[in-house]
Amino acid sequence: SRSINLAVIPGDGIGQEVVAQGLKVLNAVLPQDVKLETKEFDFGAKRYHATGETLTDADVEELKQHDAILLGAIGDPSVPSGVLERGFLLKLRFLFDHHVNLRPSKLLPGVATPLKGQPEIDFIVVREGTEGPYTGNGGSIRTGTPHEVATEVSVNTAFGVERVVRDAFARAQARPRKKLTLVHKNNVLAYAGHLWTNVFNQVAKEFPEVTTDYIHVDAATIYLVTDPGRFDVIVTDNLFGDIITDLAAAVSGGIGVAASGNINPSREFPSMFEPVHGSAPDIAGQGKADPSATVLSVGLLLRHLGYEAEAARIEEAVSADLAERGETVRSTEQIGDALAVRVAR
Amino acid sequence: SRSINLAVIPGDGIGQEVVAQGLKVLNAVLPQDVKLETKEFDFGAKRYHATGETLTDADVEELKQHDAILLGAIGDPSVPSGVLERGFLLKLRFLFDHHVNLRPSKLLPGVATPLKGQPEIDFIVVREGTEGPYTGNGGSIRTGTPHEVATEVSVNTAFGVERVVRDAFARAQARPRKKLTLVHKNNVLAYAGHLWTNVFNQVAKEFPEVTTDYIHVDAATIYLVTDPGRFDVIVTDNLFGDIITDLAAAVSGGIGVAASGNINPSREFPSMFEPVHGSAPDIAGQGKADPSATVLSVGLLLRHLGYEAEAARIEEAVSADLAERGETVRSTEQIGDALAVRVAR
Ligand SMILES: CC(C)[C@H](C(=O)O)[C@@H](O)C(=O)O
Ligand SMILES: CC(C)[C@H](C(=O)O)[C@@H](O)C(=O)O
Repeated sequence: SRSINLAVIPGDGIGQEVVAQGLKVLNAVLPQDVKLETKEFDFGAKRYHATGETLTDADVEELKQHDAILLGAIGDPSVPSGVLERGFLLKLRFLFDHHVNLRPSKLLPGVATPLKGQPEIDFIVVREGTEGPYTGNGGSIRTGTPHEVATEVSVNTAFGVERVVRDAFARAQARPRKKLTLVHKNNVLAYAGHLWTNVFNQVAKEFPEVTTDYIHVDAATIYLVTDPGRFDVIVTDNLFGDIITDLAAAVSGGIGVAASGNINPSREFPSMFEPVHGSAPDIAGQGKADPSATVLSVGLLLRHLGYEAEAARIEEAVSADLAERGETVRSTEQIGDALAVRVAR
Repeated sequence: SRSINLAVIPGDGIGQEVVAQGLKVLNAVLPQDVKLETKEFDFGAKRYHATGETLTDADVEELKQHDAILLGAIGDPSVPSGVLERGFLLKLRFLFDHHVNLRPSKLLPGVATPLKGQPEIDFIVVREGTEGPYTGNGGSIRTGTPHEVATEVSVNTAFGVERVVRDAFARAQARPRKKLTLVHKNNVLAYAGHLWTNVFNQVAKEFPEVTTDYIHVDAATIYLVTDPGRFDVIVTDNLFGDIITDLAAAVSGGIGVAASGNINPSREFPSMFEPVHGSAPDIAGQGKADPSATVLSVGLLLRHLGYEAEAARIEEAVSADLAERGETVRSTEQIGDALAVRVAR
């Protein structure tokens, strides 16, 4: 019989509320024969304040025992900027080699966008997750003096670029439009840009059916608001991916519905799925958060573990719910309940 | 009697056409007693193909003799990506220490935006122009092999950050709303982020009237499409500034009206003014390009040289022209003529 051994990290703020709904929908969608075991972890601001820990070696070992991780949100204004981001979120991405950071953008019918004319938006961003300027390679000298010099090093390897580019080509190949866009800034960041462009063009030869193009990251932000329909699959570096996926979320319905997966395709270590939004302390505990992004992240999780039909049912449920939502204001729990009913049908 | 000694670089593609209109309007707006001397330079793709040169030492010495530089656009698909960008545009920014890269965004009445509801947009971005990941510090080893490692180093100095932050505070202080936003990614790029945040907070003490806040670059792209009115002045690093100013241009009327200045406030070397748009080879020579961005760049140039009233007249002329434009399609020259008539009134 099949089983899913899931690590659950509600985290901070609205993380708690949205993860509860994500689990509710997960339970509702899974076939009877699948045994779901969950273990909750208390990472986040509270634990940091109580113990000074963000993620210990023992934690990492425990997390490794799971098939996947569902995360709500980590972060609180009471913790200095960067401590939980680097000490927990990025640490996990690096330790578990989450090199495919997958972020789909689809403007669903009935969903509001800040753009005029309800454009058709349906693309995915494959963001590299373990290299680029995110490696923490950098430093400063004469820190705090008028002569300080601070550096950040973007590290890019043929190994790291090739595997994520290959993953993106495979995803493009599997989609009807079969189009892949490389986003970088190769006219300025010439060394990294050359590596990315070169690897991209090499791998392209193995995917003759996939149409390719290249766009500078600055121009990509223009297209995302003037012609988002031009994109099918985008592959890009860690920092550019961070920036354009927030913009992509904003134009395709907002971070209330933006899901993401930090994926290790080899499954050597568990992959982690989380809404793109943060912990939103201003609305935490009020039942105001939209759990749709977390529920869609559960969908990505299921697809990663091979439950394709269940993933599709979750996407259909969220899509149908959003289409019928209109101006009705419902609580986090009410939306979760509605989605659970839909997927169970 | 007063004089302006102007270096003119039409460049490639539509650069030629729009610069002609920029000069027309400049001639029309200048008071009789100001002697305008212009010298044209042939930098760009043609010269590169003919001679292999992008910018020689002798060129640099000649350019230095001028009070300012007006640039159309540099770049052509026939030249490998990066050659003219790094060999000419960035080289000049670095040699002439153009550390204040000024990019105003104002959605003028009657101008189309991809955003719903014609939001109020009126902010300026002060982008650092001589540091960050633009310094060309980087390299690669085992280039072209499966073991390649390519790096890019973002270099940030207290000297470089402080002068641009101070410039931005002064600009914020001079505006009615007196608000300055630092955009960075200090939760991930911790060394550079710490320097920027620290310097920003220090300089803030000298400008008690200026309200300040901080936004991560990814979140900034969300605000630029959901609430652009929240911004008054933004100060940011070279790469983040590159990215968000293209997005800012897109939401505030498009690159047809986006002006920029590469400014050396000390006037030790000439500052350079240019439209944000590129050479647009697809429409070059057809009289289709909108010269408004170049004309507005001439306005920034005049303000930099102390011709405040003339700069204001240019802005009013472009604003009035855009407001009355409607659906009328006019040629590059017709728009230039109309603007020249307006500023001369
Ligand atoms: C919280 C932060 C470290 C993170 C990132 O920059 O990757 C976030 O912005 C994201 O996109 O997941
Ligand atoms: C052409 C390129 C080098 C340049 C930059 O990246 O600065 C351009 O995008 C700009 O914004 O002026």
